[in-house]
Amino acid sequence: MSHPDADIFPHATEKALETVASHSAPQDLIFYAGWFCPFVQRTWIALEEKGIPYQYKEVNPYHKEKHFLGESLYSSYINPKGLVPAIEYHGKPLYESLIICEFLEDAFPSTPRLLPADPFERANARLWIDHISKAVVPSFFRLVQAQDPEKQAIALEENCKALRALAEAVKGPYFGGEEWGLVDTAVVPWIVRDYVIAEHRGYKRADVGGGWEEYAKRLESRESVLRTSSGKKHYEKIYGRYLRDEAQSEAAKATREGRPVP
Amino acid sequence: MSHPDADIFPHATEKALETVASHSAPQDLIFYAGWFCPFVQRTWIALEEKGIPYQYKEVNPYHKEKHFLGESLYSSYINPKGLVPAIEYHGKPLYESLIICEFLEDAFPSTPRLLPADPFERANARLWIDHISKAVVPSFFRLVQAQDPEKQAIALEENCKALRALAEAVKGPYFGGEEWGLVDTAVVPWIVRDYVIAEHRGYKRADVGGGWEEYAKRLESRESVLRTSSGKKHYEKIYGRYLRDEAQSEAAKATREGRPVP
Repeated sequence: MSHPDADIFPHATEKALETVASHSAPQDLIFYAGWFCPFVQRTWIALEEKGIPYQYKEVNPYHKEKHFLGESLYSSYINPKGLVPAIEYHGKPLYESLIICEFLEDAFPSTPRLLPADPFERANARLWIDHISKAVVPSFFRLVQAQDPEKQAIALEENCKALRALAEAVKGPYFGGEEWGLVDTAVVPWIVRDYVIAEHRGYKRADVGGGWEEYAKRLESRESVLRTSSGKKHYEKIYGRYLRDEAQSEAAKATREGRPVP
Repeated sequence: MSHPDADIFPHATEKALETVASHSAPQDLIFYAGWFCPFVQRTWIALEEKGIPYQYKEVNPYHKEKHFLGESLYSSYINPKGLVPAIEYHGKPLYESLIICEFLEDAFPSTPRLLPADPFERANARLWIDHISKAVVPSFFRLVQAQDPEKQAIALEENCKALRALAEAVKGPYFGGEEWGLVDTAVVPWIVRDYVIAEHRGYKRADVGGGWEEYAKRLESRESVLRTSSGKKHYEKIYGRYLRDEAQSEAAKATREGRPVP
């Protein structure tokens, strides 16, 4: 039996489709992606911001293609967890969106920096990325998947509180100041998708406060974000499954079971 | 009313007490620690391995001392979450055990390296640290806190599976080869404390397989680990509260509520 999430729309659309089309030629770096996935979009934005040549390969992780998904945990396959994003660089595999971003930072030192050079500023950026991973992203998934109105209200409050704390730490115009950085990259996929919670869960950017609305608008209009975003129509079918708490992605299952989003 | 965990033994004992005593003089780097805390021990080991001068300050986070705990989220106080470990370096505060370790790596480049220089090897180390954070540590807390035998059995299996995957990735003698590194640092506090699950939850190092027993023994006998470990007697009182699922630390509460360990 095929995976219930396996029949998602098979490829990127609109602006993201153009980006995919211009990255079909073989390169040293292969980018295994799912056009719909917010974690994928992080790595994709980092590649675009850095101007690193890459070959885009669409993977539906629910199809569990054999070369992509290892048979045993932490095998030598591209990504033993079967999750996107993953990369293959000179034949070596790597996965986890933020770890790939840090790898691109280390392996391509002459490309635009996403982390500050100052050790303290770097640590501060990493603290806020940790905040996004532990507070922003989990509360977003809880909010989308919660069926009980009381649980939705709690998740909405947690999400807004987490976003407000982040907003108040923004130097402006971007998180760390004048330059786009890894904190912006880490959070923007959930800004691109916040219309889902706005339409179905009573979320309003203006309610967050602390300058969040302006920051969110600035981030979503960034060229690298636009170039990696598909048309809303095809996201809707996917998020419908989340909104009914039927989705079977690893993030959806972890949220349902009260476990860390992988 | 005082916090139920506030009456823990007030200071380190045995070997760790000697280390504390020799780090009481003022230094540029102040290390805010709780002698009992496994997250603290990570940072402590990193400081010892690197030979960075530091001033040890014992903090019982449950006492919520005013200078230490900010009044509002992400304030300018040392650690707005009120968790240890935290550091103050030239007056600037920082927290989160692994982020502090990476900061020490960046800010003291002439000290022994805990992460490999090669970008791919660094990324691989970070993947396994992520595995420790998302699989090893949460399953340890679940195992200790679970009261139902069936849930204990599940947590024990998850913990052993997570440890075995790690064991199989060890190059030897340490995770990355000849040199002690950040993966070893990140996991060893839960090796030091595994007698708790051995005595009360049926855990056996030998059952993990994949060379885990030998690796665990090697890590716990490292000088920096011994120098940062207190006598077992005083840990027992603390872990008694975990074993009865009465502990009120942030990690204990998160585990109980099915949330990511902070």
